[in-house]
Amino acid sequence: MSVIKVAILGFGTVGEGVYRTIQSHAEEFTAVLGKKVEVAAILIKNKQKKREVREDVLLTSDFEEILELPQLDVVIEAIVDKEPTFTYLKKAIGRGCHIITANKEMFAHYGKELLELAKVNNVSVGYEATVAGGIPVIQTLRQLLKINRVSLIQGILNGTSNFILTEMREKKQSFAESLQQAQENGYAEADPTNDIEGFDAFYKAMILSRIAFGEEPDWQDVERQGITSITSELITAAEKLELRFKHVASISREGGRVVAAVKPVLVGNENPFYHVEGVENAVNVHSDIVGRITLQGPGAGMFPTASAMIEDLVYVCQSRSGERNIVKNTVEISETSKGEQKEYWLVQGLSNNSGVTCIDEVSTGINLIESSKKDLDLLAGQHPGICYFSILGEVDLAILNKEAATVI
Amino acid sequence: MSVIKVAILGFGTVGEGVYRTIQSHAEEFTAVLGKKVEVAAILIKNKQKKREVREDVLLTSDFEEILELPQLDVVIEAIVDKEPTFTYLKKAIGRGCHIITANKEMFAHYGKELLELAKVNNVSVGYEATVAGGIPVIQTLRQLLKINRVSLIQGILNGTSNFILTEMREKKQSFAESLQQAQENGYAEADPTNDIEGFDAFYKAMILSRIAFGEEPDWQDVERQGITSITSELITAAEKLELRFKHVASISREGGRVVAAVKPVLVGNENPFYHVEGVENAVNVHSDIVGRITLQGPGAGMFPTASAMIEDLVYVCQSRSGERNIVKNTVEISETSKGEQKEYWLVQGLSNNSGVTCIDEVSTGINLIESSKKDLDLLAGQHPGICYFSILGEVDLAILNKEAATVI
Repeated sequence: MSVIKVAILGFGTVGEGVYRTIQSHAEEFTAVLGKKVEVAAILIKNKQKKREVREDVLLTSDFEEILELPQLDVVIEAIVDKEPTFTYLKKAIGRGCHIITANKEMFAHYGKELLELAKVNNVSVGYEATVAGGIPVIQTLRQLLKINRVSLIQGILNGTSNFILTEMREKKQSFAESLQQAQENGYAEADPTNDIEGFDAFYKAMILSRIAFGEEPDWQDVERQGITSITSELITAAEKLELRFKHVASISREGGRVVAAVKPVLVGNENPFYHVEGVENAVNVHSDIVGRITLQGPGAGMFPTASAMIEDLVYVCQSRSGERNIVKNTVEISETSKGEQKEYWLVQGLSNNSGVTCIDEVSTGINLIESSKKDLDLLAGQHPGICYFSILGEVDLAILNKEAATVI
Repeated sequence: MSVIKVAILGFGTVGEGVYRTIQSHAEEFTAVLGKKVEVAAILIKNKQKKREVREDVLLTSDFEEILELPQLDVVIEAIVDKEPTFTYLKKAIGRGCHIITANKEMFAHYGKELLELAKVNNVSVGYEATVAGGIPVIQTLRQLLKINRVSLIQGILNGTSNFILTEMREKKQSFAESLQQAQENGYAEADPTNDIEGFDAFYKAMILSRIAFGEEPDWQDVERQGITSITSELITAAEKLELRFKHVASISREGGRVVAAVKPVLVGNENPFYHVEGVENAVNVHSDIVGRITLQGPGAGMFPTASAMIEDLVYVCQSRSGERNIVKNTVEISETSKGEQKEYWLVQGLSNNSGVTCIDEVSTGINLIESSKKDLDLLAGQHPGICYFSILGEVDLAILNKEAATVI
């Protein structure tokens, strides 16, 4: 079987996530591409540091060594900063490699140039990971909305800012405390300027603008404001009006020009962004045929970002294929469920002496109970007329007064 | 320029939406496909009825006439019922046409057979419109999540049921009243059985199962329950617990088998489904690398469903293309905005005699005001230290006590 040889530039959170996913999903690559995917080299800063990679992988701090490999098909870049990254990727394209990047700052500055260079060299550029982490917003715009005319894109594109705003509201913390929390959780860099001053979201907005509208506004015309002016007082005032602060990038066409703004705005309960909390990202795409579509998901992190790069890897390698080859999926959501664990249920029509644990008689004849599905199915078989409904996801135990539970 | 000739089967809401979109988006088709798309024929029931279509379109109630057209490349089917639809589509494939369908009942029953037949005949099948209207969930699963192993899919897949449940809760209406409202709005058929008994969501779940897991559960093993057992009393009881009823299809792999259920469940405020209201649809996809992604959008309607079929039309016609050819997008979100219309703003640091309309002093030094962006920018230029935030989307005027507005 032929092999696709990959180099990964950078072995931080994202680079390591890509490496580990290529190892763990070998079977899927083979099924989809008909080829094996192998990591041939990893570009690192410090050669002394011990890393858990296969022995046949070239670990080097010299990019030229990677370029000189006898076979190299794809270069996956997970570094930061514009340079030397841009130079590396130009050289990779020149060598005939497809490139994949997660570097929004570099790509916002040089994406156009890289795409043109790639075209000349007949290779592809994957950049799904530059915007909204694991949410496939770029491919949705490029592949799935080809005829729709996009009129407006709005996005919560910076997970760090959204996390800070969420913490400030939920925990009544100051901006400084919430920023520190973000840093402790690994969501914000030691120098958080890019996130909290809106630069990160700005770069992402420019990348989206090019995809959706084929052009960008003049960068100096874009209103860019971070979240540093949002105080606890402002958040409290907004809450009184049933509004929440969200840091939103918006790109639209107005008066014949593409217009963009990246700034904190207020949203009400009816807006999908109201409910996007913590490090989640979300993007609303308004287009003329379909209307508004919202995509929501993890905006950052080792595996979400790796996921975007890995799916790009398939995209750049794949010749047009029809149906997806599905690997017999062996992921299980729960090995031992089968209806035996205790869950909460809203039940109507329970008679006395049912033997179930009632947490609350919510209203006449309607009880909140705790039971396994198995026991409840059994009970319903014996007492027709009972109807019961499970609660999806986590139950807020604060609402449930479990102390008062009785067996009825 | 060469031409792609299309036949549309059925000229109801969806069929007409497809026809009108092909006319209105001719430029986009040409840009993306390099070919013109022309509707050559429409299959209708009643030839006497007057319809607004171009004179060169063959209107016929005889499918054989369509099959005998000298050129026919794609058949787009927007009828209901399994038959004669399935027979028509088999014949279309046999003639070498790509097919596109929105018919979930037919496709859940015969999709596998059609896909196999299409493979033999070297044509493609588009069926994005069978699930979740305009939300590109099928292509997202097929094209964008090729390496991710999907473990669980949950969806609000029936807009009619979701509309009824929303109406019952918001307007304190009975099931019967809400169903009638759905029928008056055109969301429910005269015979609503397919929607309210969960058959429609069941068919969609089976289609998703095949895409995500490569197989379906035995249909008789699937728990299928509609929303007819949900009474106003149950909805009120759920509200007391801060829960909402949603009709949810879930498909997962458990104990080596694919397991599915389609039934009303309860969701809390933290669940993205809690906020999916009215005829909206939403799908959560849980997969191993990226985690949970949520797609939300219009689940039905003339143009959302047409959008899915139109994007499928590109998909089935397109040979592998690299970058999207972007037609210079001319959709404007607002011709006359430019910051001149009145909006609501939360403002901090306003001094007295600013001359702005204050609706509420929310807390000390923080006001809710009404102003145009232009005026506010001007004011901020004169009084540095003012910071102001716009409110995205509609403002709930009930919260704003506009009567009490004063000029400060």
